[in-house]
Amino acid sequence: MRYPRAIQELITHFNQLPGVGPKTALRYAFFVLQNPAEFAQKFAAAIATIHTATELCSVCYGIDERNPCTICSDPRRDQATLCVVADDQDRHAIETTNEYRGLYHVLGGVLAPLEGMTPETLRIKELLARLGAQKPKEIVLAFNPDMDGESTVLALARILKPQGVRISRLARGLPIGADLEYTDQVTLGDALRGRREV
Amino acid sequence: MRYPRAIQELITHFNQLPGVGPKTALRYAFFVLQNPAEFAQKFAAAIATIHTATELCSVCYGIDERNPCTICSDPRRDQATLCVVADDQDRHAIETTNEYRGLYHVLGGVLAPLEGMTPETLRIKELLARLGAQKPKEIVLAFNPDMDGESTVLALARILKPQGVRISRLARGLPIGADLEYTDQVTLGDALRGRREV
Repeated sequence: MRYPRAIQELITHFNQLPGVGPKTALRYAFFVLQNPAEFAQKFAAAIATIHTATELCSVCYGIDERNPCTICSDPRRDQATLCVVADDQDRHAIETTNEYRGLYHVLGGVLAPLEGMTPETLRIKELLARLGAQKPKEIVLAFNPDMDGESTVLALARILKPQGVRISRLARGLPIGADLEYTDQVTLGDALRGRREV
Repeated sequence: MRYPRAIQELITHFNQLPGVGPKTALRYAFFVLQNPAEFAQKFAAAIATIHTATELCSVCYGIDERNPCTICSDPRRDQATLCVVADDQDRHAIETTNEYRGLYHVLGGVLAPLEGMTPETLRIKELLARLGAQKPKEIVLAFNPDMDGESTVLALARILKPQGVRISRLARGLPIGADLEYTDQVTLGDALRGRREV
C-alpha cells in the first residue's frame, strides 16, 4: 500500500530539498496535512511567488526586490571597494557583520571543474566589465576557506592582478569559542602567522 | 539588511516544518529560488491541493483518496481483526510489512495529558462504537514502545477488556541488526522473557 497520490506527490517534492530523505519528506508532508488548510495555502503561495517577487540585480547579481538592488543603488555605500562572494547567502552573511560598507559582486559559485563550475560558468567576465567601468581601489575575495574556495581565490587573484587593483582576502585564524588544543594545525599556523599586536 | 520580503516569507514557512531551524529554512528557500520556476509552481500546487485531494476515512480515520478508505472498503481484509494505531504513518508502516490483513483504527495520537492528549481528544469513543457494530475477535494495540505509547496500551487494554475481545500488543525484543552488548537492559529482558523455540 502506497500513500495516496497527492501525499506521494508532496513527499516527492520535499524529498528534493537539500539533505531531505524520504522519511523526513514524509514527516514534512504529514505536518502540512495535519495543519489547517490555511497554512498550506499560505505556504503554497510563498513558494509560487518566490520567483516573480524577487529580481536578480543586473549590477552585482544579488537577489533583491528591485533591480539594481538596495545595496547597488545606495549612494552611501563605498563605491571604491568591491567584495566578490560565491552566492547571495554569503553576501547576506557579510552584511550581518556591519563591518563592510562597500559593494558586492556575486560570482554564482566557486571554481569546481569536476562539478562543471569553470571560469566560463562563473560571472568573471561580468566582474572584469565592472572593473573597467567602476575602477574600484580594492577587491575583497570572500570565499569559504576550503579547497574550492581557495582555488577560486587564487584563480581570481591571478586574473585580477593585471588590473592594478588592491586584492585582499578574509583573514584566517581562530574562530570565537575555539579551543587551541583542538584546533587543526593549518588554522593555528594561520593564526600565528597573522598575529596582531595588542 | 534582511532578505527580500518574499524570501523572508518563504523562510518563515519552511521554518515551521518539524525540526527545521532558520538556517535549514534559508537553505530550502534558496534551493527553491535557484531551481527553475517550474519546480516552484509544481511544489506549490502539491502543497495547495493536499487537503482537497485527500479524505479522512469515516470508518478508520485513516487518510486516503476515498471514503471509506481502500482498506476499509476491501472485502478481502480480515474483518475480525482490528489494529489500533496512533496515526496514519503507523498504519502505513504496518502495511509495508505485508504481515497484517485486518482492519485499522487510527486513534489520532497517544495519551499524553501534559500535551492535552486525553482519552476525550483521542478517538476512543469511535473505537467503542465500532466494536459494538463490528464485533472483532482480536484487537492489536500497535503503539511505540515509549512512555506515552505504553500508557496508551495500558489505558486502552483497561477500557477494552470488558468488551470480551482478545487484546494483543506488538512483541518487544531485539531489532534486526542489534548488538547484544549495546542493547539496553529492558529490551534485552523483554527478548529473554519472550524467547521462542527454534
